[in-house]
Amino acid sequence: MKKSCFLFCALCFATILPAQDVFKDLRAAWLQKAEDTKPVLIETTKQPLTLDTLVKDAGVFQQWKAVPSQPIATLYNTSFIKQQTAVVDFGEHLTGYCSFTVEELNRAVDAPIRIKFTFGEVPSELTTPFDPYTGGLSRAWLQDEIITINEVPATITIPRRFAFRYVKLELLGSSGYSDFRISQLSVKATTSVNTTPAALAPSTDALIAQIDRVGLTTLKECMQTVYEDGPKRDRRLWIGDLYLESLANIYSFKNDALTRHCLYLLAGLSYNDGVAPSNVFERPRPHPQINPLFDYALIYDVAVKEYLDATGDTQTAQDLWPIVKQQLEVPKKYIGADGMMDYLRAGKEWWLFFDWRNGLDKQAALQGVVIWAYKNTYALAKKLGKENEVADLPALIKKMTEAAHKNLYDKTTGVFISGENKQVSYASQAWMILSGVATQAEGVKAFTVLPTMQQVVYPGAPYLYHYVMEAMIQCGMNKAAKDLMLSYWGGMVQKGADTFWEVYDPKDDFLSPYNFFPVNSYCHAWSCTPVYFIRKYPAIFQQ
Amino acid sequence: MKKSCFLFCALCFATILPAQDVFKDLRAAWLQKAEDTKPVLIETTKQPLTLDTLVKDAGVFQQWKAVPSQPIATLYNTSFIKQQTAVVDFGEHLTGYCSFTVEELNRAVDAPIRIKFTFGEVPSELTTPFDPYTGGLSRAWLQDEIITINEVPATITIPRRFAFRYVKLELLGSSGYSDFRISQLSVKATTSVNTTPAALAPSTDALIAQIDRVGLTTLKECMQTVYEDGPKRDRRLWIGDLYLESLANIYSFKNDALTRHCLYLLAGLSYNDGVAPSNVFERPRPHPQINPLFDYALIYDVAVKEYLDATGDTQTAQDLWPIVKQQLEVPKKYIGADGMMDYLRAGKEWWLFFDWRNGLDKQAALQGVVIWAYKNTYALAKKLGKENEVADLPALIKKMTEAAHKNLYDKTTGVFISGENKQVSYASQAWMILSGVATQAEGVKAFTVLPTMQQVVYPGAPYLYHYVMEAMIQCGMNKAAKDLMLSYWGGMVQKGADTFWEVYDPKDDFLSPYNFFPVNSYCHAWSCTPVYFIRKYPAIFQQ
Repeated sequence: MKKSCFLFCALCFATILPAQDVFKDLRAAWLQKAEDTKPVLIETTKQPLTLDTLVKDAGVFQQWKAVPSQPIATLYNTSFIKQQTAVVDFGEHLTGYCSFTVEELNRAVDAPIRIKFTFGEVPSELTTPFDPYTGGLSRAWLQDEIITINEVPATITIPRRFAFRYVKLELLGSSGYSDFRISQLSVKATTSVNTTPAALAPSTDALIAQIDRVGLTTLKECMQTVYEDGPKRDRRLWIGDLYLESLANIYSFKNDALTRHCLYLLAGLSYNDGVAPSNVFERPRPHPQINPLFDYALIYDVAVKEYLDATGDTQTAQDLWPIVKQQLEVPKKYIGADGMMDYLRAGKEWWLFFDWRNGLDKQAALQGVVIWAYKNTYALAKKLGKENEVADLPALIKKMTEAAHKNLYDKTTGVFISGENKQVSYASQAWMILSGVATQAEGVKAFTVLPTMQQVVYPGAPYLYHYVMEAMIQCGMNKAAKDLMLSYWGGMVQKGADTFWEVYDPKDDFLSPYNFFPVNSYCHAWSCTPVYFIRKYPAIFQQ
Repeated sequence: MKKSCFLFCALCFATILPAQDVFKDLRAAWLQKAEDTKPVLIETTKQPLTLDTLVKDAGVFQQWKAVPSQPIATLYNTSFIKQQTAVVDFGEHLTGYCSFTVEELNRAVDAPIRIKFTFGEVPSELTTPFDPYTGGLSRAWLQDEIITINEVPATITIPRRFAFRYVKLELLGSSGYSDFRISQLSVKATTSVNTTPAALAPSTDALIAQIDRVGLTTLKECMQTVYEDGPKRDRRLWIGDLYLESLANIYSFKNDALTRHCLYLLAGLSYNDGVAPSNVFERPRPHPQINPLFDYALIYDVAVKEYLDATGDTQTAQDLWPIVKQQLEVPKKYIGADGMMDYLRAGKEWWLFFDWRNGLDKQAALQGVVIWAYKNTYALAKKLGKENEVADLPALIKKMTEAAHKNLYDKTTGVFISGENKQVSYASQAWMILSGVATQAEGVKAFTVLPTMQQVVYPGAPYLYHYVMEAMIQCGMNKAAKDLMLSYWGGMVQKGADTFWEVYDPKDDFLSPYNFFPVNSYCHAWSCTPVYFIRKYPAIFQQ
């Protein structure tokens, strides 16, 4: 998830201050369980591999590549006043804390030293000037820090956590009467992953295997004390990212304790009206962001259902059932007598996400996500023996499904439409299929005709691509799903991705929802789901 | 002292590595005593007084003034995103560590905050862009730090020590979806001064009283765990600054323990050949700068003598006698049969300081400082009952004095000359008077005719002005001394100095030996000696 979404939400603030506090006591207990299950991070000290040269090349991603040019010993054994600048390459994406040592070289250091460190997930972050800053998110997300070293020798750990593969060092100030060298550059890398996932089938296509490796790294880097959305920037627990990461985790690292911790944390920080929070901060004390998000609240229920299916941990699911059940209320006041959601009113009163493609009409997706979440929650209730508490769901699902098909399916073109202007989008088809509004045949037809139509709204981010993939597989479009993976995620791999990017448009390397591509996250949770697809559907992806 | 002096010293490095270590065992004992007597700093928490507006004004020092414009509560109670920038005024010069609190304002802070702090001793440091940096000293001395705040609320102490009165805060990055305020800005100010000096006589001229106050503040700010040369920059213990500060301390704060600590530290860090180190660093472990300085080595002896005279602490003086005696050897190989120092050879083999006026011929000053130090050391020896160990001094002093008078006094003009080009300078007159080469009448004549002569080399810094003042008083030129104090130090006060500056030329507010006036130190030890003169000579200055 990302910040620009808040723009859509200026009207939603009022919803967080209802008169009564639905879960006052339960919330404290959930928060305590979250505290009790806080993951212990695995720390690994990593050394840089090489010094790199940054080379402009119109043929590579974002037109810059980092070429290993010298051994790291060259940095350590040479006056840094002579070097002035260096680009250090750790050879892999890391999330953690950087330390280095500064030592005199032949002469006493008689003045402070000023060094600028710039940490980059991709080479272009080291070559693009950050200022004057034109981006739409906080300038402070950019990973540059100017360090003043007052005493030499010294070993310094920069207190800020960074996400990066490359570090550029630039000397901004030193005394002409002294000399020094830098040594022992290292990173204390962190993750809450402590398992190795099963190997893929030997028959797996080489590019699929690479996609899997990059996806695993992406997931591992985002798995810290919560499922972060991206270790470079937000670092928060968003329900949308949690859901996708926990799916990938189920089929790879199997760190169920992290999922459990996150589900409790979200429950413990639910708003007073019982709505699951769109996203929460862990530090300095756990607290929710104040913007509720309609579709994420519903996805919380599905995440709990998937957790139970994967682990059999009925006790946690029972424990969380009150908040799961409460999310079912979110749509209810918008469901009309005809079974259609009042999209206009819901859109006025809530932040609806689904994707951040500007201009996306979300009527069909909204109808779909409610039916999908109701179905999943009903399945969960049955497993917990709670059907009687949600006895209204089957009829509601049926009514909403029929209404959606009646109002949103365009038999002439074979696609689902959305809104007053009958917009055709990938988002609408995906959610109509996932909700079961579309039959399998209708789904196949829709995805087949979409590429031939004009004015189709394509996905704006990997987050929606996940739901499109899932919908294709649900319709049995195995080849199309594999092709999409090879072209979309495979495209990133072929462009040199160490981890999957928050934003990827095969035709525009510089696309940024924040008007400044270096502030994009290049290791982003919602892009990691190939791990889930490849491992859940071996017949499609491992043959 | 300041760094540019090292330029003159490239040839001197060899002198620090003699074959034998003169004081190996003694040095360890001296260093241990320094360690045992390490001062405990007095910490005081200071609050800012006002928010200021920086106003351009061609009529004020360096053309910028800080005008109090709002109460500090305005900073604390207003969104900092609205303010974007603020100039905080603590109302006095402070040396210490700055803390501040960042708190949410109505909305969750969802991104890091990037704030630039610039600390200034004078307003122009807040208005002059530092980059691209053109100065001759390390850019890192400039007191600007960019802080990334990752979690809110937070109370942060910037780990670097600053010397300043003003702090400018500039917001460089924040999220448009959040808001915050800054509060509880404070400084933990440090000094090793814990006494209040005696009041001046009520009859004291108002400007003299102001000079005294500014001098006391300057001295107090420089008295930390050593006598620093200036708390903004070097922060080191230099013998030249120690000598002047300890003189001022004797007549004001009377912190004899600090002087004792510094004398032991210098002895403990003397070079292998027994020469007292020009300057030493305390951190990260005590170590000397590697450039020996001829005149400072000799001044060490005089500092010990003055310490003994002031305190009667014979034990310390006895303890340090070996290194005091060793400094007498520094000049010996350069003293010719005719009693004249071999200035050319000494100048080749040693760093000679006296002042940093470019082009100053130092022959007369060199001859003078040796005689002056020999006389003072002989007086010290007598107090310690060690005359027999320095029995050669009286004859040497006599021979050198006569030779100097014969070779350097120009009877026609009535001034002392220096070098092949017979240069006339304030430095030469001062040192010929202080050494006793000049009679009182000759001294008066010299200082009287100097202002009427062409091509006189004037002092370049307050350091030399001290010796000129002392020489004037030694000749009985009380009015001239008082006039000099009123015009020179009084000039700084009238230009708004909170503390005395490292560099002051009444005709050029922007003078900088480092080619960039914001890197000058505006609280500098060697400028504090009005405290000494006003209080040692009340008949001249307090009537």
